[in-house]
Amino acid sequence: MPAVLINGKPGGAIAVTDRGLAYGDGVFESVPVTGGAPRLWPRHRARLRDGCRKLAIAFDDWDVLDEEVRRLAEDSGDAVVKVIVTRGGGARGYRPPLAAKPTRIVIALPPPDYPDDFAQLGIAARFCRKRLADDPDLAGVKHLNRLEQVLARMEWQDEYQEGVMLDARDRVVEGTMSNLFIVEDGGLRTPLLDRCGVSGVMRNWIIEACRRRGVAVREDRLSREDLLQADGVFFCNVLIRAWPVRRLESEREYDVRAVHDLLRRLPAAGADD
Amino acid sequence: MPAVLINGKPGGAIAVTDRGLAYGDGVFESVPVTGGAPRLWPRHRARLRDGCRKLAIAFDDWDVLDEEVRRLAEDSGDAVVKVIVTRGGGARGYRPPLAAKPTRIVIALPPPDYPDDFAQLGIAARFCRKRLADDPDLAGVKHLNRLEQVLARMEWQDEYQEGVMLDARDRVVEGTMSNLFIVEDGGLRTPLLDRCGVSGVMRNWIIEACRRRGVAVREDRLSREDLLQADGVFFCNVLIRAWPVRRLESEREYDVRAVHDLLRRLPAAGADD
Repeated sequence: MPAVLINGKPGGAIAVTDRGLAYGDGVFESVPVTGGAPRLWPRHRARLRDGCRKLAIAFDDWDVLDEEVRRLAEDSGDAVVKVIVTRGGGARGYRPPLAAKPTRIVIALPPPDYPDDFAQLGIAARFCRKRLADDPDLAGVKHLNRLEQVLARMEWQDEYQEGVMLDARDRVVEGTMSNLFIVEDGGLRTPLLDRCGVSGVMRNWIIEACRRRGVAVREDRLSREDLLQADGVFFCNVLIRAWPVRRLESEREYDVRAVHDLLRRLPAAGADD
Repeated sequence: MPAVLINGKPGGAIAVTDRGLAYGDGVFESVPVTGGAPRLWPRHRARLRDGCRKLAIAFDDWDVLDEEVRRLAEDSGDAVVKVIVTRGGGARGYRPPLAAKPTRIVIALPPPDYPDDFAQLGIAARFCRKRLADDPDLAGVKHLNRLEQVLARMEWQDEYQEGVMLDARDRVVEGTMSNLFIVEDGGLRTPLLDRCGVSGVMRNWIIEACRRRGVAVREDRLSREDLLQADGVFFCNVLIRAWPVRRLESEREYDVRAVHDLLRRLPAAGADD
């Protein structure tokens, strides 16, 4: 059993009436921990706070959460600290109880063991059949309603390392567990996330790093063809950092140097701000 | 604490790593219990089974679940027995573990205490701002991703008893916790649920009862105007049975007799098949 704190108490179980389980009524973060320190934690915390605001979850124990994340990180060395904030307990019914008290969950999990090759030599990717539905109110939020991603990831086993998710209009949005960028004319383009998709911490770090270093970067509508015609494509999140695409189904092979050359112009991906 | 069985064991808590919490990766039912008997249980079970199939959740303990639902119902008298089936435990990552073992949860909760007036004199309803997103793969399934309903229900307090949810194309889909029908030319129309919405047990019971009794009923696309021009409108689910709408915002007042007259042509709503 991983190390877990629920509202500050050690333990691995939550009430079966929690709205996080009943309705996915909450938000979460997966924070990489290296050498006992949570990486980019202020950015994760800012996204949690934004998500709570959009869902109107009245969570305000930010200092306590800070301390708990740092404590579990310190005890873990290398890990992923997962943070979940739900609207709290309920019984039945979509209407939140007036006195809903959010549930704060911090879990230390083993770090993922992705082969280094994925970042160096690139990965094989596919287009997912499962589409992301438009929901402008929740676009960008890392909430607990993630069946779309689960169903998309169930479309393959180990033949690919990531899948490209499109919306109903055939626009490229993101990977199942990551965001994506294309390299084009020496700069980057990444999908606008105003209608669906998760606004990734690493994605936003890369956009800001580009702006600081004078690398052209644009949030834009991207088509399937934009991907196939790009000089390079990569997926990113805080755990994988950046994975160049080597092959996109049987439709395109990429020279991953286009991605490596671009990323070398930025600070080490995910270095703390 | 309500009476709870988790995988057959009494207790009120589930593992914090359960995918039901992490991703809303599961399905649920709220089964009314009167006089110690679960009402329309075979229909609820059939919908659970259909949901598990659509989510590819390998749940097969149907006989055990049957027995547990009946036992908790018997012990409870009048209650709502809530059943949740999740894909089971995990750690992190959208990909289901190959050996995922579903989690089976049965909870006995107090019955709702809606005033009889709602069913007799009718209710006040509103149009929700929150829209339902199209997701044809999951349309009809009562899964655990219910943030849309939560956000819709948060739009008001007690001024209304239910809200009409529309899709992005302005088509009427359902109530936040119910389905809906309109009375028109002595028959019924109810929204087609091929793109979004929950395929309600009471809704389907009413459709079948109409067909058996020779009452015209049609699944169709409904507009806001169809509602405003109907002779009557009612919401239904297994707990409320049928609530006629007395007033729809300030746009329309209805004579609820149109609904009562129609429903009198059917067996008592929700009588066991």
